[in-house]
Amino acid sequence: MRILVLNLGSSSIKFQLFNMDKGIVLAKGLVEQIGEEYGRIKINAPGGHACIQDRLHIKDHEEGLLQVQEVLKELQILRNIEHVDGVGHRVVQGGDLFIHPTLIDDRVMEHIEKLCPLAPLHNPVNLAGIKALKKQVPNLPQVAVFDTAFHQSMPAHAYVYALPYHLYEQHKLRRYGFHGTSHHFIAQEAAKFLNIPYDQFNAISLHLGNGASACAIKGGKSVDTSMGLTPLEGLVMGTRSGDMDPALIEYIMELTHSDIKQATNMLNKQSGLKGVCGNNDMRGIEAMIEKGDPKAQLAFDIYAYRIKKYVGAYAFALGRVDALLFTGGVGENCARLREAVCAGLENFGIHLDTKANATPKSGIASLNTKHGVSILRVPTNEELAIAQQSAQVILQMRQRSH
Amino acid sequence: MRILVLNLGSSSIKFQLFNMDKGIVLAKGLVEQIGEEYGRIKINAPGGHACIQDRLHIKDHEEGLLQVQEVLKELQILRNIEHVDGVGHRVVQGGDLFIHPTLIDDRVMEHIEKLCPLAPLHNPVNLAGIKALKKQVPNLPQVAVFDTAFHQSMPAHAYVYALPYHLYEQHKLRRYGFHGTSHHFIAQEAAKFLNIPYDQFNAISLHLGNGASACAIKGGKSVDTSMGLTPLEGLVMGTRSGDMDPALIEYIMELTHSDIKQATNMLNKQSGLKGVCGNNDMRGIEAMIEKGDPKAQLAFDIYAYRIKKYVGAYAFALGRVDALLFTGGVGENCARLREAVCAGLENFGIHLDTKANATPKSGIASLNTKHGVSILRVPTNEELAIAQQSAQVILQMRQRSH
Repeated sequence: MRILVLNLGSSSIKFQLFNMDKGIVLAKGLVEQIGEEYGRIKINAPGGHACIQDRLHIKDHEEGLLQVQEVLKELQILRNIEHVDGVGHRVVQGGDLFIHPTLIDDRVMEHIEKLCPLAPLHNPVNLAGIKALKKQVPNLPQVAVFDTAFHQSMPAHAYVYALPYHLYEQHKLRRYGFHGTSHHFIAQEAAKFLNIPYDQFNAISLHLGNGASACAIKGGKSVDTSMGLTPLEGLVMGTRSGDMDPALIEYIMELTHSDIKQATNMLNKQSGLKGVCGNNDMRGIEAMIEKGDPKAQLAFDIYAYRIKKYVGAYAFALGRVDALLFTGGVGENCARLREAVCAGLENFGIHLDTKANATPKSGIASLNTKHGVSILRVPTNEELAIAQQSAQVILQMRQRSH
Repeated sequence: MRILVLNLGSSSIKFQLFNMDKGIVLAKGLVEQIGEEYGRIKINAPGGHACIQDRLHIKDHEEGLLQVQEVLKELQILRNIEHVDGVGHRVVQGGDLFIHPTLIDDRVMEHIEKLCPLAPLHNPVNLAGIKALKKQVPNLPQVAVFDTAFHQSMPAHAYVYALPYHLYEQHKLRRYGFHGTSHHFIAQEAAKFLNIPYDQFNAISLHLGNGASACAIKGGKSVDTSMGLTPLEGLVMGTRSGDMDPALIEYIMELTHSDIKQATNMLNKQSGLKGVCGNNDMRGIEAMIEKGDPKAQLAFDIYAYRIKKYVGAYAFALGRVDALLFTGGVGENCARLREAVCAGLENFGIHLDTKANATPKSGIASLNTKHGVSILRVPTNEELAIAQQSAQVILQMRQRSH
């Protein structure tokens, strides 16, 4: 079974083509600068076969998707798009309507459209891709895999904000959380690795990339997560503030003479690690720390400290923690960060093996000394998770139609 | 030594007169509805001697302070205001300038004035009271006791927000925290009670009244607290939202057609427990829960859960916790809340004695079963704390002038 995974951004299309039976990636690539004067398409096929075309004009996502099909044909990876068994789309906001990956039909598209006000930057683009592909290849099964779906198991006391209730009841303002596909994927991988039945597995999952979120997992289900209505809440991120006094916004608007859109934009794009030290890349920050830069050190300390507090909060929310999981670019690769998060937590059963932490094995790696909470570095693979979930939905569809 | 403690609100003056040598309260009272058509003054003196005067017109705080002096004279509690040795003022915002209670002179007044932008509702009123009294009784020593002072020991990674750094550097936007006098007072009481040297005492202090905050105390010093630049951040409160996705404000403004002042005002006055269930009083909420009201139950669950998460966050921040302290109206009196916060935390050394919790002894009371973290109900007394600190400053002043 061949599954094409699509992740559409405002001016980009990330794609990855899987052969699920053989468990291999047939190709992965990126279309960039859609809508700009010159667009670009990059693709990597097995055996290091790489291809870049630039100076293309790619008008919109519809044309971008045609380019993807074209380049897959040219490189003889796919005879044509009908040889794909289905497409899995990453859709950011599924609201409280979608708790599972879902085969897309007209009604599902309507619902994704209805949820646009809750994710104005993402859902419209996701939907445009779905519609374009439906026009281009009407009979191709398309599956929506929602970033929010895994968190729909949260109890109300974790997702309802202490705001006037009608804002939740009438306008659906509540915590949704994101990165669900990743948290779910690494939790499953970790439970397998530790040989714990998934439905009895309690874990705290830390997805630390340029975006970052924590998730409390109880019996295999998400019971809390740090991102909220939007991906701004929670941990400090590359350019996002994470948690802060909501009253700060009024001060920021006054001091910077900005309106609410500009202020929220500043919190999303000019804050976080970048706001404190000017750099939003953890490798760059580590290099600055090595040179003795005090702001880089402060940015790192704030970042690590806020993660440590979330780990504590979720440990107490869970009552019992089997494992602490690190994933994402920073979570997988920054030993300094894992060490800072785990430091001083021996009383709570968290004993980091600092040697193993400094040079972890590739793949999933155990980083704790023998007893207590398992500390794992778990590589995430959202595209594979989307492909797996999409394949499952398509199989179920085929079984039903027999 | 007689100390008059003053706590001025926007339209009120709370006052309490102490005889420090005898350790007794000579009188306590409240001036209300200052600036309205009819003002009111209530006073309680020892032996149940109470007095209420209403239908007074009290133009401003200056006149209110004269009324306080008048009623103390009338009731023969004080021959005149010169028989007081000093006045202790609760001042809300001391910024990073004031880390101790401070004898007020012209320079101190200037600094309190400079800090008005950071506490526009409180510092101007506090300052007006200080100035009025200085005019009325020029030679009376006045001491400022700051709500923020105890938290000035926080490390930078706890008080710097992940925002563009110039907002901190140039405009002093950072976490300050409040309720410092209360957290400090109950931590000292608890350490004495447990017979632990104060400078080795690690505790998590929960001040839960209509306002609510948590404080992480390490070696007797505040190292983190849940309120931020303003008292809006952190725990859910009677009418305040506490933590939430900062991006929510843009949604709220759009949905409720409000400007930023109105939106922030909604977060301060129409949110929290009241927002979720219509009631901001915990006793009322408990009565609603008894009647099976689901929104009251939800409001309670959110409130308790968010406290539990802060306790976990601060436990991990501290690494070792000697005691968990409950104070304030809700913290001291709501057994249901203490039980909800402590439930399921046995793995972390928190073992609530549910019997002792249900009917605690009066005064400071131990609520844990024998081992692990001490759980204490500790009555707070901010007025006494302000009187004690003011008395100490006045004694030092006298010693210096000898």
